[in-house]
This record gives sequence, structure tokens and C-alpha cells, in this order.
Amino acid sequence: MLSRNREKFILSLQKRKIRDDLRLFVIEGDKIVREFLLSGRDIRYLIAKPEFISGIPVEFRSRIDEIIPVSYGELKKVSSLKTPHNAMAIVPMPEVTLKMGEISGNLTLALDTIQDPGNLGTIIRAAAWFGIRDLVCSETCVDVYNPKTVQATMGAIMHVNVHYTGLEEFLAAARNDGMEVFGTMLEGEPVYGAELAHNGVILLGNESRGISGNLIPLITRRLTIPGFNPVKSGIDSLNAGMAASIILSEFARRKFTSG
Amino acid sequence: MLSRNREKFILSLQKRKIRDDLRLFVIEGDKIVREFLLSGRDIRYLIAKPEFISGIPVEFRSRIDEIIPVSYGELKKVSSLKTPHNAMAIVPMPEVTLKMGEISGNLTLALDTIQDPGNLGTIIRAAAWFGIRDLVCSETCVDVYNPKTVQATMGAIMHVNVHYTGLEEFLAAARNDGMEVFGTMLEGEPVYGAELAHNGVILLGNESRGISGNLIPLITRRLTIPGFNPVKSGIDSLNAGMAASIILSEFARRKFTSG
Repeated sequence: MLSRNREKFILSLQKRKIRDDLRLFVIEGDKIVREFLLSGRDIRYLIAKPEFISGIPVEFRSRIDEIIPVSYGELKKVSSLKTPHNAMAIVPMPEVTLKMGEISGNLTLALDTIQDPGNLGTIIRAAAWFGIRDLVCSETCVDVYNPKTVQATMGAIMHVNVHYTGLEEFLAAARNDGMEVFGTMLEGEPVYGAELAHNGVILLGNESRGISGNLIPLITRRLTIPGFNPVKSGIDSLNAGMAASIILSEFARRKFTSG
Repeated sequence: MLSRNREKFILSLQKRKIRDDLRLFVIEGDKIVREFLLSGRDIRYLIAKPEFISGIPVEFRSRIDEIIPVSYGELKKVSSLKTPHNAMAIVPMPEVTLKMGEISGNLTLALDTIQDPGNLGTIIRAAAWFGIRDLVCSETCVDVYNPKTVQATMGAIMHVNVHYTGLEEFLAAARNDGMEVFGTMLEGEPVYGAELAHNGVILLGNESRGISGNLIPLITRRLTIPGFNPVKSGIDSLNAGMAASIILSEFARRKFTSG
């Protein structure tokens, strides 16, 4: 049974301010909740239909602080999905710290003002697929714990450390550590022919305005995805998720073909 | 002014049956409507705020059968967007025919049961970017003239011919013409190292079930996008739009680097 207070509490987590204050966020969907438990993480509240609850192996139960069995109708009231699955959970935000020393040998993705929650989710999914460990978001990016973003990551949020920080300082520090900063732009070196390092920072800009002016001087290499449409119309562009997928794939293929 | 009858008529086009009967569909958004006119196409009805209408160059007016000036409130009533722009238009479906002889030298994309309108839109956007002229959808794919799909293409729908047909017959005919059929699968030859022709059919499967069993024997090459995440969880997969973008990019890069 879901008390009125609990219901209010769960719904309050749709607000960024509350999430940040409590350091909690919501994950939804049977597969994602199960995956979350399997990956060894803790769950503060599991809100689920009795069928789902009875299917959880006993050894995982100790990692759930409280289990709240609910009817489908109750789940629907607190879900941010139109047609919720059987389970949702409230989980602690992972505590991640960004240490330059630890990322200097890796490929890291930096996002400047990505504003669409679905785009951020897709980018995280691509990052997880291609083995990116750290994602550095400008403070002006949409919140990664927004229910729409979490949903769009399809669980990939578990596999990527997401940091929020000032990108100017971050990119300057990366440059100081001798890392390249690869800007993804409309005009630049075609990525297909480019020699690319196995480490550095890949910078993606805002969906409509691209990379902010103050970050441009910090870019060491400008990369572009060549278009092949004979009709240049300007609106048939790639979206942020597609551009991220292709650029990350290009870096990944160089590891693959050299290894 | 939008009469009650006109309002009903516009809203009726949200149904596939009506669209198919009348061979009409709706495009929304100032940029897309303008681009549509610039590309030399005809518009049956332009429904727009007076500011938008007055900005249309005189030479384009002859290609609009009827202009209906509306208030923002009226536009909101007939729009499928939460926050409509200033213009929408009702336009005829292009009459396209699929001739095997005309596609045998090209790279063509075939979609098996893509069901999410947003995914189809993203795939069309990627196809347009990479210069794919023909997209062949199984009859079980979502309708390309669904308002959500049209919106997700961001205008790219103008640059790609979309055909609906039985894929088994289509792929058999392509094979007969000596074309390769590249299946995008979870298990296959890593696309990065694969030698790829400049023509053939790329086949993408359903979002969760992949390529249908009856089409598998028609595949001549199985391609896969290698994953680089050390944690194999099964849920951090690429979505259909991302997979299409990466695969099309791989074919495009071979043209680019050989040319």
C-alpha cells in the first residue's frame, strides 16, 4: 500500500531541487531495476507489484532498505511513464569525483549545454557502448537524473560516471595535462581520415547553437562528420545523439583496427 | 479563421487510414514548411499565423492551393505538438515507385518492423545525411507519415523516397540482381574491418526482436557494431537510430576514403 505521504514523496523526486537535496533519483522498468540490483547497487525504496517482488532472489533483498508492494493503479499514480512496467525504485545518486590524473589516459566525453533529456540519455547509451567511463557535463546541461533522461539511457546510466562542472576550467585543466580537445563541429577535418589518439576529450555542443564561444579557443582539433546528401538544405542535420554515436564509433574503430 | 469542418479535417489526418485514402499528410514547423516550399513542392493547405504568411515570397504563392490564416489558439487546436510553431501545412504524399533496375547501383536501406515513430524519423534523418535515396520499409513498419515520424525527420523526409513493400520479395529481387544484403546483427563480422561495397541493401531489424526469421536466409553478410563496455549487461545496447547512423557512416566512410 502506498500512503499519501509516500506518494507525495515519490512525485517530489520529479523536481531537480528535491533530487539534489536528497541525493536520490528514480529508476523505472523491470529490466532496469533488476539490472541495478544485479550490478551490486543499493536501493532505498522498491515500489513494485507483488509478482515482481516475489521474483527477487533472496540474496539481493538485503540491499533493499524498504519494499513497498503496490497495485498497478498505485504504480501509475507515481510513475512518470504513460504505461509503467511492474517496478520502480528510488536509489542513491552515485558519489563520483572527477580527478584529472585518472582520466588523462582515457577518452572522455564533454557536453556543452545539451538540453534535451532524451538526447542526453542517448548520448549516455552511446558512451556506455563505446566504453567511455567519464562524461563531463556543463552546468547548463539538462539534469542526468531527470526521469526522461534516466529512461532514455535504458540502464546505461549505471555504467558511466556523470560529472557536472564548468567546462572552461575542465578543458583548460585537460589541456594542461597534455590532452587533446576534439571539438565536434559543422566545419572541420573530416573525421573519417583523421588520425585520432586513444585518449583526450571529445567535446559536443548544444543541439542548435553548437559549442559555446568561450570554449572554442580550448579546442585543439576540429572534427566534422561529412554529409553525403546532394541537396544541402541545412535542416537535414544529424541530432546530438546520432553525432555522438558516430564520433564515438570513429574513436572506437581506431582502437579496434590497431589492436 | 478555421471553420469547425476544417478543424475536423486537419485532425482526421492524424489517422493513418484517412491519410492513406486522401494521400495527404501534415508537416509542422516554420523551418520545415519554408524548406518544403523552397524545394519546389506543392502545398494543399497552409495553416499559419498572418506574420508567417506575409513572409512567404510571392513567387511561391502559386504553389499553395489555399492559405488559411489562423490565431495561435486555433493552431494549437489542430497541432500535434505541445507548443506549435507558427505554421503547418497539408501536403500530398509523393508518388514513388521502387524499380529494382534503378537501385542496383545504389546503397539502399531496408527496415524490418521498426515500430517507434521517433526511431523511424531518426533513421530517415541519418539516411538523408548519408545520401541514401531509397528506404524500403516492411508493411509492418510504423507509418512514415505519422506526425511524430514526420517531426522527427526534421525535414529529411523530403530527401528520401520511402517505399512500403514485402521485404522477403524485395530482398529476393535484390539478390537476383546480384546485390549483397547486409544484415545488421548482434553477432556478425565487426563492421570496422569489413570490406563494404558501394551498393547493396542494408537491413535493419525490429527494436527488440531484431531481423525476422524469414529474412535471415536472404542475408549475404552479417555486420555487427562491436561494443567496448567491459560490463556486458545486455541492456546498454544501441537503439535503432544510433545503429543506423553508425552503419550508414561506415558505408559512407569507405566512399570517402577511397574517393
